Amino acid sequence: MAIKEGLRPGGRSARVQESVHSAVRQLLQEQERASVTVPQIAARAGVTPSTIYRRWGDLAALLADVALARMRPDSEPANTGSLRGDLQAWAEQYLDEMSSEPGRNMMRDVQSSQTPGYCVTILGGQLQVILDRYQASGQALPSVDRLINLLAAPTVFRILFGAAPMRVEELYELIEIALQP
Amino acid sequence: MAIKEGLRPGGRSARVQESVHSAVRQLLQEQERASVTVPQIAARAGVTPSTIYRRWGDLAALLADVALARMRPDSEPANTGSLRGDLQAWAEQYLDEMSSEPGRNMMRDVQSSQTPGYCVTILGGQLQVILDRYQASGQALPSVDRLINLLAAPTVFRILFGAAPMRVEELYELIEIALQP
Repeated sequence: MAIKEGLRPGGRSARVQESVHSAVRQLLQEQERASVTVPQIAARAGVTPSTIYRRWGDLAALLADVALARMRPDSEPANTGSLRGDLQAWAEQYLDEMSSEPGRNMMRDVQSSQTPGYCVTILGGQLQVILDRYQASGQALPSVDRLINLLAAPTVFRILFGAAPMRVEELYELIEIALQP
Repeated sequence: MAIKEGLRPGGRSARVQESVHSAVRQLLQEQERASVTVPQIAARAGVTPSTIYRRWGDLAALLADVALARMRPDSEPANTGSLRGDLQAWAEQYLDEMSSEPGRNMMRDVQSSQTPGYCVTILGGQLQVILDRYQASGQALPSVDRLINLLAAPTVFRILFGAAPMRVEELYELIEIALQP
């Protein structure tokens, strides 16, 4: 899409993305989420609404993209020196982030977006970084899918549908199950 | 609430519930979900909008209540003669139901409702029925929470956020994990 837009597609495309994301972040701080509109975002970002529709499809997809960009971690998962310790640190942080207001909003936006699977791709990437640290250790490693099914899924399910949030002890029990050969 | 409304609260309350639920089901068949309104439902059900607001709070809560009533199973989970077989039958049916259009709508409505935990209560009740069949068998039984974390949560997480749906073989592997002591 960006290629249609100019001679230096990467440059212009990246600038549009940054100014639109920044406009969304500002507007979400200033007003109720439900009242933010595409024309408003376009005006703040200095682009036309059709630029936004062409690039993101709709408001839900744009909000999801902004939320995912925010969730994409700046740094690698904590390295504690053991697989169990790394998973405990990662799972506790994931529980905290998803339980927070921005985390809940992100889950809502991602569900309304056209590419909800992108979220699991980011998640899987983080878990793969942890597993890669222990590839040479000789211990049997769980698969990324197993970790997503046994750690991420129950954490999110309980936030979205549970009567009570997941306790850290429960999360640790799930890590022990995931580590069983 | 029903007590305020008449001399035979159970009778009137049950009739209001049935006519409102029935109006919602009809309207959802006739028109787009996003265009259904509380005044429309009230007109079809022969009640005032304030009756609906008083009883359900808002449209999202009402839609969730209707969806949950529909999901609440008419019959007990299949009895195959073994815990493993019962869980396999239940999990496959749960995967089918949640992947369907009504299932996805229900998950969306329940998330917007004030009492999302109600959904897990129904789920837990179904799983408890299965476990109760094997209480006297002497085998070690998983807890309901374990089954929700290891079976229901990954199924739903993959539907909401995954790039590909859960395969039945994966579901069976998760059942084996849940059955490990």
